[in-house]
Amino acid sequence: MSSIFGNKIKVSIFGQSHSQAIGVTIDGLPAGIKIDFDELQAFLSRRAPGNNEFSTPRKEADMPEFVSGLVDKTTCGAPLTALIFNKNQNSSDYKNIMDIPRPSHADYTAQVKFGGFQDVAGGGHFSGRLTAPLCIAGGIAKQILKQQGIEVFSHISSIKDVKDDEIDKVNPDLALLTKTVNKPFPVINDIQGEKMKETIILAKNNLDSVGGTVECIVTGVNAGIGEPNFDGLENRISSIIFGIPAVKGIEFGNGFDSTLLYGSENNDEYYYDNEKIVTKTNNCGGILGGISNGMPISFKVAFKPTPSIAKEQNSVSFKDKKNTKLVVKGRHDPCIVLRAVPCVEAAAAIAILDLI
Amino acid sequence: MSSIFGNKIKVSIFGQSHSQAIGVTIDGLPAGIKIDFDELQAFLSRRAPGNNEFSTPRKEADMPEFVSGLVDKTTCGAPLTALIFNKNQNSSDYKNIMDIPRPSHADYTAQVKFGGFQDVAGGGHFSGRLTAPLCIAGGIAKQILKQQGIEVFSHISSIKDVKDDEIDKVNPDLALLTKTVNKPFPVINDIQGEKMKETIILAKNNLDSVGGTVECIVTGVNAGIGEPNFDGLENRISSIIFGIPAVKGIEFGNGFDSTLLYGSENNDEYYYDNEKIVTKTNNCGGILGGISNGMPISFKVAFKPTPSIAKEQNSVSFKDKKNTKLVVKGRHDPCIVLRAVPCVEAAAAIAILDLI
Amino acid sequence: MSSIFGNKIKVSIFGQSHSQAIGVTIDGLPAGIKIDFDELQAFLSRRAPGNNEFSTPRKEADMPEFVSGLVDKTTCGAPLTALIFNKNQNSSDYKNIMDIPRPSHADYTAQVKFGGFQDVAGGGHFSGRLTAPLCIAGGIAKQILKQQGIEVFSHISSIKDVKDDEIDKVNPDLALLTKTVNKPFPVINDIQGEKMKETIILAKNNLDSVGGTVECIVTGVNAGIGEPNFDGLENRISSIIFGIPAVKGIEFGNGFDSTLLYGSENNDEYYYDNEKIVTKTNNCGGILGGISNGMPISFKVAFKPTPSIAKEQNSVSFKDKKNTKLVVKGRHDPCIVLRAVPCVEAAAAIAILDLI
Amino acid sequence: MSSIFGNKIKVSIFGQSHSQAIGVTIDGLPAGIKIDFDELQAFLSRRAPGNNEFSTPRKEADMPEFVSGLVDKTTCGAPLTALIFNKNQNSSDYKNIMDIPRPSHADYTAQVKFGGFQDVAGGGHFSGRLTAPLCIAGGIAKQILKQQGIEVFSHISSIKDVKDDEIDKVNPDLALLTKTVNKPFPVINDIQGEKMKETIILAKNNLDSVGGTVECIVTGVNAGIGEPNFDGLENRISSIIFGIPAVKGIEFGNGFDSTLLYGSENNDEYYYDNEKIVTKTNNCGGILGGISNGMPISFKVAFKPTPSIAKEQNSVSFKDKKNTKLVVKGRHDPCIVLRAVPCVEAAAAIAILDLI
Repeated sequence: MSSIFGNKIKVSIFGQSHSQAIGVTIDGLPAGIKIDFDELQAFLSRRAPGNNEFSTPRKEADMPEFVSGLVDKTTCGAPLTALIFNKNQNSSDYKNIMDIPRPSHADYTAQVKFGGFQDVAGGGHFSGRLTAPLCIAGGIAKQILKQQGIEVFSHISSIKDVKDDEIDKVNPDLALLTKTVNKPFPVINDIQGEKMKETIILAKNNLDSVGGTVECIVTGVNAGIGEPNFDGLENRISSIIFGIPAVKGIEFGNGFDSTLLYGSENNDEYYYDNEKIVTKTNNCGGILGGISNGMPISFKVAFKPTPSIAKEQNSVSFKDKKNTKLVVKGRHDPCIVLRAVPCVEAAAAIAILDLI
Repeated sequence: MSSIFGNKIKVSIFGQSHSQAIGVTIDGLPAGIKIDFDELQAFLSRRAPGNNEFSTPRKEADMPEFVSGLVDKTTCGAPLTALIFNKNQNSSDYKNIMDIPRPSHADYTAQVKFGGFQDVAGGGHFSGRLTAPLCIAGGIAKQILKQQGIEVFSHISSIKDVKDDEIDKVNPDLALLTKTVNKPFPVINDIQGEKMKETIILAKNNLDSVGGTVECIVTGVNAGIGEPNFDGLENRISSIIFGIPAVKGIEFGNGFDSTLLYGSENNDEYYYDNEKIVTKTNNCGGILGGISNGMPISFKVAFKPTPSIAKEQNSVSFKDKKNTKLVVKGRHDPCIVLRAVPCVEAAAAIAILDLI
Repeated sequence: MSSIFGNKIKVSIFGQSHSQAIGVTIDGLPAGIKIDFDELQAFLSRRAPGNNEFSTPRKEADMPEFVSGLVDKTTCGAPLTALIFNKNQNSSDYKNIMDIPRPSHADYTAQVKFGGFQDVAGGGHFSGRLTAPLCIAGGIAKQILKQQGIEVFSHISSIKDVKDDEIDKVNPDLALLTKTVNKPFPVINDIQGEKMKETIILAKNNLDSVGGTVECIVTGVNAGIGEPNFDGLENRISSIIFGIPAVKGIEFGNGFDSTLLYGSENNDEYYYDNEKIVTKTNNCGGILGGISNGMPISFKVAFKPTPSIAKEQNSVSFKDKKNTKLVVKGRHDPCIVLRAVPCVEAAAAIAILDLI
Repeated sequence: MSSIFGNKIKVSIFGQSHSQAIGVTIDGLPAGIKIDFDELQAFLSRRAPGNNEFSTPRKEADMPEFVSGLVDKTTCGAPLTALIFNKNQNSSDYKNIMDIPRPSHADYTAQVKFGGFQDVAGGGHFSGRLTAPLCIAGGIAKQILKQQGIEVFSHISSIKDVKDDEIDKVNPDLALLTKTVNKPFPVINDIQGEKMKETIILAKNNLDSVGGTVECIVTGVNAGIGEPNFDGLENRISSIIFGIPAVKGIEFGNGFDSTLLYGSENNDEYYYDNEKIVTKTNNCGGILGGISNGMPISFKVAFKPTPSIAKEQNSVSFKDKKNTKLVVKGRHDPCIVLRAVPCVEAAAAIAILDLI
């Protein structure tokens, strides 16, 4: 079930970086959902490359074509399939990957798993390009959730050692978050944003790359969503988030930092806010026992630095069975965190919609 | 599918802390596996409470009874079911939880989800006690993996701010690890271990609790295990690990720390070690594109401090619909990290066996 | 997923005919369902052997013990597990099956699949005894469905060439059906029932066996239940029904007979009965496009004659690698159709509850 | 999971009769399978309409476009997606279905399930047209199975009361079957075939329709394929077969006829044919306990008469809430059995490939 996610709503991703098309099928959407295509396109453009100096110059219009599942732009209960036809690929850039695997890419593992039959061009099915169909599904999931009062926001939380301000996990400022996610460089604190940009440009100029973290918050989820044990919110969200390339870690609430606190500091005490039971702090990230407690759901994701760097690296030649040098060609993002922000939102929206 | 994990091998956990029995059914085990019950019992005793001053004095023999799936202690291809009958419970300790939820426990979320019908005694199905059947399944999975040359080791990586030495991710010392996991307090560096114990005792004496991290390494996994996208090693391991109570984060390889490095620092360069392709570093934790690269698989898990503390806390009364104070009765681990170590191994073993 | 059925509600069957226990875990039941244990026991006794001359004299109390999932006889949201401990087995009867497979039993296929490690005693996991846990789950499912106005009835439709009256598929007589299912020999027409009994006794006296069909009707299912394509009512019901041993065919509505009609004869025309849309005939068995149309759901199941017969048969010896003769020892039902009637109800109830 | 079938190999069908495209994604195919597109096209043309007087004159080229999953016509391990773009639709024919449901079609059940948002044109997602993507997946599955020595053959077994010769279930004649399936009217006995044609034409001339049965045999499956309980060959094959529109029954081996035999007649006795264990008869259809016994797998499927008939029928008007008359417009097959033959092969091939 490697490329299919979900129980009630199944999201099936297909395509390779340079195949004729990439796309997604969503099975199980309720009928009667009118899709706002302008809003969807606006969401998709947040991950599209080629908009600025921080991402690959490869231009992708990323205009999906919907071939099934809709009548008059409204879901009809049948599986919804959307395609993005690939253009502007330059497969010749990737010829030597077949022989010399790029460090920290999936080239070698794909070679072993698929016995040399894998599509190497552009990373094939492992490409970050496959996050485009994920964002189509996620953008639709976001619209459905929004109708239920649920919103999903992400921002760049850090680039290397430069940190953005944190989202208030107890009382997130929706206006601020809405503004933040729509910035070309989605940070709360623009001064820190400028430092991040400098960090990225410095890496780029050094033929190198950097990583960072993305913080995500989901507001408006009622208490009682999720399941105990293996289908809890944390299980399901982490399960889809690790489907985004370059993710190496995830933490909910204050996550790894909670290990530094005493129980009395980390526990989120309850009180009545009028009729509603809320907590004073939100160290648990809105999740207890896998189930939402009505507070905002909060998590943070670690993205490793882009493995594609222009610097010469050591690798091996399968053919010659000996060590060799590799210079990765093609143009790559010196930092994929910027474009990963909407992907994190998309993944979270899909996971939560599937559980509701 | 909340209490069932796995695709090829399905592990189904059942029971509540104070129900007549807890147990596990494993569906899909190959036939003909002879189970070493002494080894299994030794593994289970690593998580059993009551062995020392750092865990709850509730004594659990945790001797599983196997009621199906075996002929002459050997798997027969039918689902294997093992039970642990509960004894020594004191349900009266939990009466007021029904009305006053313990902060950072699942009491409130269970109340909302199950409408007051949930079993509150001892945490019900959310109890850490449910990790006993997980360890039965995991202990069997470990035995099967070991026959294939795969071993799983975990140790306490930190308690609060006290850190153990790290496992060498490139060339782990199997003899050292074997010795470590079998220590009553499983750390590599016993001096640090003593400091950890002091930290725990201090918390306990303050009617408080602490958390920590567990590091896990899996050796002997060939390259090519795992799937792209949503069924990769990271997706599957995280999906089961978050089924262990109190887990709030997971990271693979150098995880969140990778975000602080340049790509040129973080990339794991390949070279031939005789005929075998290996990497100089193992920052990716043995996983690229969701698939093993033949290096040890490495990850770290964050456990929050035990939410059950003896200190008075603020909470609410459902019945009275107002704020109130709560003193949690019963005896609880001041730190569950110690007992979580074999649970992490069990979960990893199950996830990996399911993917092989 | 061989021994687990269901999507929303997962029924996991475990045990072998002669293992320490057989049982079932039901994951996903709503919390707050009070189980009527007397009614459940009455249902289970309908499939229990030893009640009459038509079934094996092996006595089974079949009193399930519930070890988890309940608080005060009411579901608590955690997986419900029930066990039946096996007694009164005589495994020595089965020793030669290990070498000489019984014709039309699963002995040979199990030998190939499980490489000689399978549990042969009493048919192991393939035994009809495993329908007891299916009936526990089904009996509970029936109680939940009944609270929603849905009832499931089955009767012996034929034994060899002796046929019972058919259920009226358009306006089934609930009082008649209730009476029928509770008869020791559940047929509508008792005269035909007597002929069936004679047929069974004749076969038994000839050291032979007979088969037959079971008709099932489900009343009170609203229109709109089921899914298109692969998760329709027919797909799901057939999928679980073929989990009952000895089933070789299933047909919905008028099934195979529909192939003998013209479309104009077979089509079920709609009309308004007051405010409700109903059909004049019910040849489709209440299912169109996999989805219920509000009419009773109707299907018929074919059970082959019991393969265990006392007559000498030809078979092979694995050990000697040559042809040999076999006389099956042990006491067996000369006709399993009688005891299969509640199993069909149980399976239907589980499949429908899972889809609702 | 309504439109997705399979565990190891997942087949996801999408599209509506008149949507922009219909298609299929196959996830989990092994890498390195070279697809013979000529053979695939020849297989697809067996279900294509418009070839003769027995099927709808709507012409469908049904040339699939493969947009992902292939490199040089060879599977690359990524999900394979193929599309057929719809042309030549005439949606205006279907306008009144929105108000007046066609008897024995899914119009009414879809209306209830999807609340009026369903795509009614051409039957939407319920259309027989969706068997085209099923046949793409099945045609590929057949090619993979053939490389393993497994072949799947179907023929028209009956049209109304006219019967074709039966396939020899013990020693099927592969040359005869190969010839049969490639006939424009796939029957073994052409004289009976002529009578069937006459039956269809008579029905057509009477503005009516007829149904029939399809017999399928799968040769070359080794003993040991399939699982006990709910994932046996019968469970899985029936589960996908009922995904083909108009199927109302399935039986394995001698199926319902087995209920008319004594156990001693129905049992398939074993003997050694040289080194190989075989059976003298094959009444079980090659399946015991859900697992193949090495004999040919045999089953028969009942197709109801096409519900779309040109005769005036009684129905209801949703809008007016009263009874009304309906004349179905559009051109429809007077008998869909002919075109269903390859669909049955496709479904069987997918189910078996998924279990191997």
